[in-house]
Amino acid sequence: MELSQIYAPVVDDLKIIEETIKKVSQVDFSWLAQLLNHSLGAGGKRIRPALTLLSGRFYNYRLEYLVHMAAAIELMHTATLVHDDAIDKSATRRGRTTVYKNWGPEAAVLLGDYLFAKAGVEVSDTLNIRAIRNFSQTLMTISRGELNQAKNSYNINQTREDYLQRIFGKTASLFLLSTESGGILSEAPESSIQALKQYGHDLGMAFQIVDDILDFVGTEEELGKPAGSDLTQGTLTLPAMILNERYPQDNPIKRLFLDRKRTENIQLAIEQVRNSDIVEECYAKAKEYCDSACRPLKVLPDNNARESLEKLANFVVKRRN
Amino acid sequence: MELSQIYAPVVDDLKIIEETIKKVSQVDFSWLAQLLNHSLGAGGKRIRPALTLLSGRFYNYRLEYLVHMAAAIELMHTATLVHDDAIDKSATRRGRTTVYKNWGPEAAVLLGDYLFAKAGVEVSDTLNIRAIRNFSQTLMTISRGELNQAKNSYNINQTREDYLQRIFGKTASLFLLSTESGGILSEAPESSIQALKQYGHDLGMAFQIVDDILDFVGTEEELGKPAGSDLTQGTLTLPAMILNERYPQDNPIKRLFLDRKRTENIQLAIEQVRNSDIVEECYAKAKEYCDSACRPLKVLPDNNARESLEKLANFVVKRRN
Repeated sequence: MELSQIYAPVVDDLKIIEETIKKVSQVDFSWLAQLLNHSLGAGGKRIRPALTLLSGRFYNYRLEYLVHMAAAIELMHTATLVHDDAIDKSATRRGRTTVYKNWGPEAAVLLGDYLFAKAGVEVSDTLNIRAIRNFSQTLMTISRGELNQAKNSYNINQTREDYLQRIFGKTASLFLLSTESGGILSEAPESSIQALKQYGHDLGMAFQIVDDILDFVGTEEELGKPAGSDLTQGTLTLPAMILNERYPQDNPIKRLFLDRKRTENIQLAIEQVRNSDIVEECYAKAKEYCDSACRPLKVLPDNNARESLEKLANFVVKRRN
Repeated sequence: MELSQIYAPVVDDLKIIEETIKKVSQVDFSWLAQLLNHSLGAGGKRIRPALTLLSGRFYNYRLEYLVHMAAAIELMHTATLVHDDAIDKSATRRGRTTVYKNWGPEAAVLLGDYLFAKAGVEVSDTLNIRAIRNFSQTLMTISRGELNQAKNSYNINQTREDYLQRIFGKTASLFLLSTESGGILSEAPESSIQALKQYGHDLGMAFQIVDDILDFVGTEEELGKPAGSDLTQGTLTLPAMILNERYPQDNPIKRLFLDRKRTENIQLAIEQVRNSDIVEECYAKAKEYCDSACRPLKVLPDNNARESLEKLANFVVKRRN
């Protein structure tokens, strides 16, 4: 199942969002135009905009508002990535050099701020106070989550609960915003909005768990960045956590977290995870979230958008990038 | 004339804003609480919140909305300062160490993002789409201005027009937002909103010109940071521009901008400006803006808030910090 098939019910409207995002780069300050073009041009799966549109398909489909919301979410997402790359000093993302790498930390910080602001303008054009407020609250959740991750880098004593909270902030919160906004802007009944929120939340959790698996099992070509980048940042993800739980006395994760200079342990951890059933265990967890994501969809009208949301849950655990 | 006297018509309500800002630090993540407390606790003149409240005093004074707007503006202002300090690697601000200096660039970037987000939540609580949209557009203007400043650091070939555009982005845009929002949220007639915008714009221009003068003539104690910090960043402000215009063949600004390692020129430039009538010339320019700021106020009802806005224009050119 290809993403393009899943997106079918909204494929034409996704092009409008693509155009909206493209227009963001059309500013008369040429350096800014270049930075915008670079950061927004990489594309990506556009899964969040697709979620907003699909979630808006059940009641009063108001494309004029959904487009602003979806663009706002994608701009906010890009802004957080641009800032993350500056913080992590990452050189590549989605197979191209980062803004940080090309133009330095100053440009990355200020470009991210500009993108946040532009996202704020877009979301205000939904004319919906609830959607606008949720939007900013989600950015609070994300920043708080990032601060938490920074604070706990190389901290081996984190619980599963800590991990789940972290991936909620990092990914699920924005997925939830995408689906909830679709519901709100299409004037869905409250019970349907809640169902869409639950779906977005669980899908986002699954998505991030898979992301964390891929950082161990993916190739650099698939990932668009080197494998093991979480460990390079001292971020304890689920596969690493399980490896550490299984061999509490000694293991490469523990050695790396105790002495971050011993980077040879990154490759050792990757190999050990790959050669174990840890990957399987993590996928089972992701699968659980996907199953749970689909359950609340039953309260929504049965149409091709609902089918797409179900297929998307399936896609998320199968994807390789 | 003390600021406290000027603020008299809104002094009790400013305390409510102070409380609102203080509450922002009350989060259950103790590190975040510490960062928030540090960045928001320094206080400052709170000139922007005062402008919002005073500007809301002419028609339907809706304190419940004005408080959210004023808090939002102050939070956004703080966020931009936290990011600026990270970009400029500044160690002190308002007489205390910066977040950047204490906790590093990561924390500064993420804290700034959190503050932007919290500001977005506050502004959404005004329930006014126009005010919300203006808010985000102002942040676009500010970030764009900062990018422009970064791009043109150590560029000696900048015109007066470039300078005015830069200080609009840096300061006047947010002053304008403060006064315009007061008008919008108090349901002022459009002509009065336009008058308040003009006032805010011109006051902000004057304020920043004075700031740029003080960076040459102020003491470290008055400024809360070392004098000459603009030159340290390669930022060409009005006094430096005039000095360079007066001695086109050779002068310390030119020498510094051609070779930024020759930092002895910073002190030489400060002395040369202090011992000339350049300071006077700059003050005359600031005074022009203040006079022009007060003119449109005539269309507003004549009350003690209008008097305060006039006095504030006078204060801005007299202040020493």
